[in-house]
Amino acid sequence: MRTPDLPASYWAVIFTSQLSDDTDGYSEVAARMLELAEQQPGYLGSDSARNPDGSGITVSYWRSEEDLVAWKVVAEHAEAQRMGRDRFYASYSTRIAQVTRNYEFRSH
Amino acid sequence: MRTPDLPASYWAVIFTSQLSDDTDGYSEVAARMLELAEQQPGYLGSDSARNPDGSGITVSYWRSEEDLVAWKVVAEHAEAQRMGRDRFYASYSTRIAQVTRNYEFRSH
Repeated sequence: MRTPDLPASYWAVIFTSQLSDDTDGYSEVAARMLELAEQQPGYLGSDSARNPDGSGITVSYWRSEEDLVAWKVVAEHAEAQRMGRDRFYASYSTRIAQVTRNYEFRSH
Repeated sequence: MRTPDLPASYWAVIFTSQLSDDTDGYSEVAARMLELAEQQPGYLGSDSARNPDGSGITVSYWRSEEDLVAWKVVAEHAEAQRMGRDRFYASYSTRIAQVTRNYEFRSH
């Protein structure tokens, strides 16, 4: 995600995960969570990548710490987090970080 | 990467990129940079994932901002960054962030 017009400081949620073998319905839940996040106040965007071995990273960007905490407790998101713990993920880490510098490069 | 024994606050470099069509030698350079980063003072670890479309994320974790700035200017790394701009990447973003909270989950 390009963030050229962002405030000088904003927040990132760095979510790293390892999928389990029980991922039936995962892509639908992930797509729905992205759709829901996009409607949240203070959501600035996100980047996501996953390796063939099921390890992956999603980074979402937020205007303030309050905005990302509010997203964490949205009911449908809390339910998705429960499904993540119970079924989809073998393990994950969530890191909350304040972005202080941002460089962009494009070749053309 | 699990970080159970990390200091309460540490730093993350969030590097998101889109590979170009000119990636000959890329995996060798990437592997060498990981090997070199692991020898740097203050390096705590990293996570990396790439999608089939060539978009990817690497997050590296550092004890202090000074440590990650020192890594940026290591000569062999600076040369790799130049190759990245000239050949390997169509675009990228580098975000420097201070990690303030860290949650871990493992299913077993």
